[in-house]
Amino acid sequence: MEKGKVYALLKRVKETNPLIHNITNIVVANFSANGLLALGASPVMADAVEEAAEMAKAAAAVVLNMGTLNRESVEAMITAGKSANESETPVILDPVGVGATSYRTQAAQRLLQEVKFSIIRGNAAEIANLIGEKWEIKGVDAGNMKGDVLTLAANAAKRLNTVVVVTGKEDVISNGMLTNVVHNGHPILTKVTGTGCLLSAVVGAFAAVEKNHLDAATAALIFYGVAAEIAANKTDEQGPGSFQIEFINQLSLVSSSEIDLYGSFYTI
Amino acid sequence: MEKGKVYALLKRVKETNPLIHNITNIVVANFSANGLLALGASPVMADAVEEAAEMAKAAAAVVLNMGTLNRESVEAMITAGKSANESETPVILDPVGVGATSYRTQAAQRLLQEVKFSIIRGNAAEIANLIGEKWEIKGVDAGNMKGDVLTLAANAAKRLNTVVVVTGKEDVISNGMLTNVVHNGHPILTKVTGTGCLLSAVVGAFAAVEKNHLDAATAALIFYGVAAEIAANKTDEQGPGSFQIEFINQLSLVSSSEIDLYGSFYTI
Amino acid sequence: MEKGKVYALLKRVKETNPLIHNITNIVVANFSANGLLALGASPVMADAVEEAAEMAKAAAAVVLNMGTLNRESVEAMITAGKSANESETPVILDPVGVGATSYRTQAAQRLLQEVKFSIIRGNAAEIANLIGEKWEIKGVDAGNMKGDVLTLAANAAKRLNTVVVVTGKEDVISNGMLTNVVHNGHPILTKVTGTGCLLSAVVGAFAAVEKNHLDAATAALIFYGVAAEIAANKTDEQGPGSFQIEFINQLSLVSSSEIDLYGSFYTI
Repeated sequence: MEKGKVYALLKRVKETNPLIHNITNIVVANFSANGLLALGASPVMADAVEEAAEMAKAAAAVVLNMGTLNRESVEAMITAGKSANESETPVILDPVGVGATSYRTQAAQRLLQEVKFSIIRGNAAEIANLIGEKWEIKGVDAGNMKGDVLTLAANAAKRLNTVVVVTGKEDVISNGMLTNVVHNGHPILTKVTGTGCLLSAVVGAFAAVEKNHLDAATAALIFYGVAAEIAANKTDEQGPGSFQIEFINQLSLVSSSEIDLYGSFYTI
Repeated sequence: MEKGKVYALLKRVKETNPLIHNITNIVVANFSANGLLALGASPVMADAVEEAAEMAKAAAAVVLNMGTLNRESVEAMITAGKSANESETPVILDPVGVGATSYRTQAAQRLLQEVKFSIIRGNAAEIANLIGEKWEIKGVDAGNMKGDVLTLAANAAKRLNTVVVVTGKEDVISNGMLTNVVHNGHPILTKVTGTGCLLSAVVGAFAAVEKNHLDAATAALIFYGVAAEIAANKTDEQGPGSFQIEFINQLSLVSSSEIDLYGSFYTI
Repeated sequence: MEKGKVYALLKRVKETNPLIHNITNIVVANFSANGLLALGASPVMADAVEEAAEMAKAAAAVVLNMGTLNRESVEAMITAGKSANESETPVILDPVGVGATSYRTQAAQRLLQEVKFSIIRGNAAEIANLIGEKWEIKGVDAGNMKGDVLTLAANAAKRLNTVVVVTGKEDVISNGMLTNVVHNGHPILTKVTGTGCLLSAVVGAFAAVEKNHLDAATAALIFYGVAAEIAANKTDEQGPGSFQIEFINQLSLVSSSEIDLYGSFYTI
């Protein structure tokens, strides 16, 4: 992927305002909607099983987030996912906290069985859980850990037959054959709730305008990481409240030249 | 209505802190509560069917918002609405996304049948759907479109026997006989989620202190639009994150003289 | 308690990042999670009855908030509370709006019967309701009202066999024998939704790292109040939107010396 594609896709989002149907959690619904609006997408949050299929059919991408799961929302996710599959609309999964409880692990497995996902985004522990592996931080040797994440992403992509995004200190995106590593982002993102969830929604917005989902996800991560870096820089030492607001600002403001200047990734 | 009535009603809200019972959605609950608090009202969000009637009875206005509808919340809305009707407490409907799915359309029709609304606020497509019409943007001729919105608001007010607020580039408020047009507001409002929902809640706060609901709604829209203009001006080009925060500030700060200076409306 | 203990406990939170399991409401979920993150705790919001016990077992403290109660969430609260009791994990109750409807009153009584709480935090009316008393503001004689609050807190602590926190103009914390009064905080806290709910969550974070729950709650209130004072001072007259953001900043920034300088409490 050329770096120029990042802004080209962002521009396509801004011009076409794709409708992104989110079934998400009570913690991040507002932040996700505002983030998507900032970027130019049109968010809709609708989690009633009665309308999940119809809403998914109208959407350009569907994002399923397991943050505050319950019986109803799992059914709504499956209904929305199947509906999106029928119309070949991309479906993104954010398996929040999978592995933390057996309920989440089972729900995730059911979702994987019933819905075909275009992209799955999680941290290393979540992605490992999806393929039945246990992720353990194996020490401070960053070199080895990085190697582990690369292998994890590629393996998960092959096993789940989808594009997998593993976020962490570095972000790894793989379709099982090609793997991209993104160097953008900022540690303060971990101090604001829902930054992972919003990232999954942003990945959905990029997937809505680009059929090559490896490129779509990679571009989304570069854009998102650059916005975070600029926001962190502008609110240096002010605290996570100010960062959160400036980050929403930057999601709407990041320019083509800033992405060219700060965007950092490579393909393996 | 005299323009002086806008601040007079706002002052009444600030002095009496009316309890506004909201049955609303997971996306905007926090923003709506903070907006109402900023303005001087006392928000309560309670959507369990078991307590909906009792909470509505205690409230000075009830605001029903269809944003993230489900079986339980529809029942709670009907229960709260009927309870408010019994005690002649104003009930406001925000038919978010009606027409987007048949589930929403049916829920809205059920609400209209079972509850007597004082004020209904939506965009043109939503209001048109409520009276079985299809709203189509008929081109760029602003003159004609404005005419259409005026007719839509007046027709809907007559057919639904209530005050109807159609928000858009210009806001139109009609009771079927008199129609007011408000020129305040700012395009950046569309970049922050829940600004329509919060507006409906603010309309509820004004209706809580003024029995003439055409005046109450018109005053609420002028106040809200002026606050948005000042906030947009103060956060010029900073982005939607900063605007959102400054808008909450301005909802608490807007003065009588600012409303006199910037408030802009006329009656047809 | 020595004043130095306040920062010592805060430091312990920052170093150990205790997992705080919140079953809370749609209005404050985001604000509570961001507040806990700012302070160094690890929030998880999970309210499905299917995973409540397992999540509570993994947590260092469980916070049950009655803000937007429903049938499911009451069951989840009881399940989580019992599970935490089994592993002697502290459980905090925030009986939001108890007394406002009979549904809330009954739910609170059921929670009190089935779960053993370490700390209960509410305003005077809420705490009075829990012990079957009716709280009435008895006039403007601040001296008497203060006396009433002290008695209320001590009585409730004895009757409910727990640490009770009554927040208001002054905050009173009692275990039935010892009673602390905290003089920190700022009136603008009442203009931001969820500041009481977040306080209960912060109390949970302190209880997670300190077995003396009277000290834990007192330290949490001093820390929280000092953060609010600094934030209010820094955003003087800007409005509640700016305060809200700066308050999150200060929850992450408050220093040992600021707590020493501004922290104000005494023991009766």
